[in-house]
Amino acid sequence: MQEERPYILISNDDGYTAPGINYLIDTLMPMADIIVVAPDSPRSGAGCCITPNVPLTCKLMHREPGLEVYACSGTPVDCVKVALNRFVRRRPDLIIGGINHGDNSSVNAHYSGTMGVATEGALQGYRSIAFSLCNHSLRADFTPLHDYLLKFTEYALTNELPPFSCLNINFPLCESFKGVRVCRMAHSRWQNELEEREHPHGRPYFWLVGDCAELEPEATDTDRWALANGYVAVTPVNLDLTHYGLRDKLNFDAL
Amino acid sequence: MQEERPYILISNDDGYTAPGINYLIDTLMPMADIIVVAPDSPRSGAGCCITPNVPLTCKLMHREPGLEVYACSGTPVDCVKVALNRFVRRRPDLIIGGINHGDNSSVNAHYSGTMGVATEGALQGYRSIAFSLCNHSLRADFTPLHDYLLKFTEYALTNELPPFSCLNINFPLCESFKGVRVCRMAHSRWQNELEEREHPHGRPYFWLVGDCAELEPEATDTDRWALANGYVAVTPVNLDLTHYGLRDKLNFDAL
Repeated sequence: MQEERPYILISNDDGYTAPGINYLIDTLMPMADIIVVAPDSPRSGAGCCITPNVPLTCKLMHREPGLEVYACSGTPVDCVKVALNRFVRRRPDLIIGGINHGDNSSVNAHYSGTMGVATEGALQGYRSIAFSLCNHSLRADFTPLHDYLLKFTEYALTNELPPFSCLNINFPLCESFKGVRVCRMAHSRWQNELEEREHPHGRPYFWLVGDCAELEPEATDTDRWALANGYVAVTPVNLDLTHYGLRDKLNFDAL
Repeated sequence: MQEERPYILISNDDGYTAPGINYLIDTLMPMADIIVVAPDSPRSGAGCCITPNVPLTCKLMHREPGLEVYACSGTPVDCVKVALNRFVRRRPDLIIGGINHGDNSSVNAHYSGTMGVATEGALQGYRSIAFSLCNHSLRADFTPLHDYLLKFTEYALTNELPPFSCLNINFPLCESFKGVRVCRMAHSRWQNELEEREHPHGRPYFWLVGDCAELEPEATDTDRWALANGYVAVTPVNLDLTHYGLRDKLNFDAL
């Protein structure tokens, strides 16, 4: 009896045409059947945004044995919801966001649509991981990631993750990696985030920009440290947002 | 010497005209100077979405002693960034998201733009809280919340919260509350999330809908339980997303 190939749902926030997601598809096709439901255009910074008030459309862009690619008008999280509710052929064994063009370590995970994919996957009860490369270029070289993508995917297919968790995996920008570090999310803070311009008619408008300040530059157990030192950063993410330490201290009985 | 009044930044995801945010403003004006930078239109489900690729505009809609109200073209998180980088007159003592029209307990916190406000506030190093009422109606009655809003705001103005934390405060839909419960985030799961329709030209489109299934209906320490039983639910939220338990178990040295 022939064993069924793994079935993987892939989405991203750079859109279905982005080189990152297509590199991931090409890498994983030899080992898995793949369905892609990804945004029809870039949705960087979409976080866990959903679209409750606008109808969503979804178009089959490509089909070949072992691969279907849909472009969806919604956000990355919408894409996962549409895929799971409508387009998957069976229960996916794994949900992957990425490969993102750009760094999703530290607080960027809050804003990342790629992490939105993994978050939604995990909230829906699926093993979920996000891949990101610390390079925004559309011409980024993904080849150093090849073997790691296969190994992490193999790991996620053969190992359970706890409920309400996923993996945020970031690759540094270098030709070869020193190894893999399991990390915590670095505490950092975006600053100088607005660039003001003037409309031809005189009104101001703003571009969101900024630089990310380290709040704990000496720490060596963070994802930021790993990336800055040439390691692949694996940050396990907890989607139960409860601050248990604070819960045990707070008391509003007097209110 | 006259003591300076507290200075509070308020935003939301229902837009600056929503009754919820205006009820909050009216309630807090006697005790604080207020700046509002809120979306110019509803942005429900925006989560921590940011707008890096479209210029943002911001318009002063109202000014009176102790109150300024700006309408911003961006998401709730954009509003906080724009406010802090450009429009605040001094460092706010507190950042509040809400009052949201609708339940932001349990996994809804991931999708909530109101929680996006509090998340961004906390990531930027401010004391931050989110208020939500479990009633989507534009004609919701906010008067049962009045004294609680004042007391929670007073609490947040006089007590530190740990770094990378904020409070997600949800009010049940009832005329009076049994009390306040400090809770953990209930594990639940949205399901049946797509309603398919047909465009006049025959193409399918989808509305995001769904119902929220309890994954732990017996638990009595969750925000869902508190709300279902008439209590105000205070869920302390941890913005350090690291799954520390999983971090200590994972090992990729062999990769």
